[in-house]
Amino acid sequence: MLAQKYIDMLSRKSVIRELSEYAVARGKEIGYENVFDYTLGNPSVPVPQSYNDSIVRLISEKSGMDLHGYSQSLGIREVRTAVAESLNRRFDMNYKADHIFMTSGAAGAIAHAVRLVTVPGDEIITFAPYFPEYGPYVTHSGTELRIVPPNTEDFQINFEAFEEMISAKTMAVLINTPNNPSGIVYSTATVKRLADILRRKSEEFGHIIYLISDEPYREIVFDGVDAPYVAKYYDATITCYSFSKSLSVPGDRIGYVAINPACPDADMMIVMCGQISRGIGHNCPSAIIQWAVSENLDITADISVYEKNMNILYDALTDLGFEVVRPGGTFYIFPKALEDDAVAFCNKGKAYDFIGVPADSFGCHGYFRLAYCIETEKVERSLEALKKFVRSEY
Amino acid sequence: MLAQKYIDMLSRKSVIRELSEYAVARGKEIGYENVFDYTLGNPSVPVPQSYNDSIVRLISEKSGMDLHGYSQSLGIREVRTAVAESLNRRFDMNYKADHIFMTSGAAGAIAHAVRLVTVPGDEIITFAPYFPEYGPYVTHSGTELRIVPPNTEDFQINFEAFEEMISAKTMAVLINTPNNPSGIVYSTATVKRLADILRRKSEEFGHIIYLISDEPYREIVFDGVDAPYVAKYYDATITCYSFSKSLSVPGDRIGYVAINPACPDADMMIVMCGQISRGIGHNCPSAIIQWAVSENLDITADISVYEKNMNILYDALTDLGFEVVRPGGTFYIFPKALEDDAVAFCNKGKAYDFIGVPADSFGCHGYFRLAYCIETEKVERSLEALKKFVRSEY
Repeated sequence: MLAQKYIDMLSRKSVIRELSEYAVARGKEIGYENVFDYTLGNPSVPVPQSYNDSIVRLISEKSGMDLHGYSQSLGIREVRTAVAESLNRRFDMNYKADHIFMTSGAAGAIAHAVRLVTVPGDEIITFAPYFPEYGPYVTHSGTELRIVPPNTEDFQINFEAFEEMISAKTMAVLINTPNNPSGIVYSTATVKRLADILRRKSEEFGHIIYLISDEPYREIVFDGVDAPYVAKYYDATITCYSFSKSLSVPGDRIGYVAINPACPDADMMIVMCGQISRGIGHNCPSAIIQWAVSENLDITADISVYEKNMNILYDALTDLGFEVVRPGGTFYIFPKALEDDAVAFCNKGKAYDFIGVPADSFGCHGYFRLAYCIETEKVERSLEALKKFVRSEY
Repeated sequence: MLAQKYIDMLSRKSVIRELSEYAVARGKEIGYENVFDYTLGNPSVPVPQSYNDSIVRLISEKSGMDLHGYSQSLGIREVRTAVAESLNRRFDMNYKADHIFMTSGAAGAIAHAVRLVTVPGDEIITFAPYFPEYGPYVTHSGTELRIVPPNTEDFQINFEAFEEMISAKTMAVLINTPNNPSGIVYSTATVKRLADILRRKSEEFGHIIYLISDEPYREIVFDGVDAPYVAKYYDATITCYSFSKSLSVPGDRIGYVAINPACPDADMMIVMCGQISRGIGHNCPSAIIQWAVSENLDITADISVYEKNMNILYDALTDLGFEVVRPGGTFYIFPKALEDDAVAFCNKGKAYDFIGVPADSFGCHGYFRLAYCIETEKVERSLEALKKFVRSEY
């Protein structure tokens, strides 16, 4: 019989996808350039030329077996070494290849991390606002996802609520910094305080509480922002990374798990990832893509446009009286809606072709997300629509 | 706490991998060209030039967003259409894009198929000899894998044992034809008889018993062999395919699920696959690889070498008195060992640098597998070692 769980999921439509489809359909009526579509977190800046050059050169230089043969099950050894060395160079860590497991993006990385440190019935805690896909990522393995309510003052962590929620069933805490959807980067003080609590609670409960740090936006941090490398502050950190945003290659499906070398059993945890893969049909990312990223580890696409867009939107939103915390990174901004019901607010915006996403599915009632990974020219043009929307409706 | 299940798996070493590592280590002593390493099913013929050409051309022609942006979650629509049309052309089917879901190889395809039609506690039946990875593929989702003992006469299906094993808990039957490790192709008579039983039992138990047909070797079929397209004979067929063997691109991680259009709810099943992906961190295969295979659907690498190798080995083995069924496809041959214990037999072969794999982990005691995806010249040279081995030891 067909698995009812997945049939049930079909009726639960994604708000983001629905609004994105609306924006595309509306674009067919009035021209997509006239729809201020802030729905999707799809990187808009081009992939670096050197990345494409790598692929073309690899095809001419590497033998068929090296390029198209089975890669080792944990990832190509040379690629894992290159990833470790890049992390060490940039964040003063001491990773070795043995601490790196190549995955199909951050989704693949988190799927492995969750299975690594939980069994069905365990709990993982995350903090609102949070990426809605954390739901299926965590719960489909039989683990429960618990959500700490947001700290809407600055979108750092609501530590009081967290300490109340953490229990002997908590096997891991899942964070996302820089954060989708808030755009906030957890400060050194936040990460240190979180690490202190995790150490204390690990001791209290007699088992390690792992910190799963989902960092696909790590390189998109704005000028002067305090953006600590999370694993430096907590030994049992499992870093999940994707190159989707930094290199603008979400379709290439490439990322990694990095286990902090200071984590007990770090080497074994990586080998365990290879076993987890066998049960979820994952295996390695494409070998050619592994090679290509390994030659482009210390560069990014030209991500400066995101900060430019952020500044334009932040100024316009605050001028219009929105409550909004200035993002420290990513390509998201997360204002409070002008009425309690952000769904109603976003629906009203449609009449002005200003399309944001209400944040209820991110665990944060009354807020909305704008994904400003679009052309700056369009961000500028959108301000008139936003003003008209706000002045007419509120 | 670390998940004990995966720690336990670490101590269960793969016989194939151990022997393969032995062969490589031995090669370092005496030169790998002198080790007759028949352990691994890694395609040895080069990837077609047109496939590499496709990648290079795609990079120069397609925009960054088309090539590196998120692909639709079920696979790129044009690619799915192309796959459907290729299947229709070659097998007289009537697939549409809506029946195709792009995956990271057959492993990814089977991971989805299993979750599509079972819930924990259900059973899937497969037939020995079988690909050992079916164990984790099936059981890690909580479903039990039951093994029908082999029909060693011709390695078609042992129908008597199958009919005894099938029960109300059987939600699917998993077949692999052409077969790893036997090299046998299920005949039209076999597939028809299997389909008849599945129809009868589906009615008896009041639920559809799905047929999951794992077909990565579909194109590697030898001259004159009856090789039916399985889905033509049973409506509720879920075909799992990989391009790894036909195009010699196992490292590219690309394949698909194809649901027979005659299967009830076929369209919905494909959309369900998209939901399953969310929970196992799988998502789509790399977009660039999807595009590349879509331009090379009706071609294969030069796979003729496999038949040549098979004929050489089959003649030599029968001359030496081995019981062996002539393979109809793949790049495997599956003789009976010259003593009851194939592990002991294969261990003795090591002294002659003739390295085969005992088939106990394939569910078939007393047999061994030779993977002849190696150079013909080496196959020919291996015959002296084989003769010496057999004549000295038996």
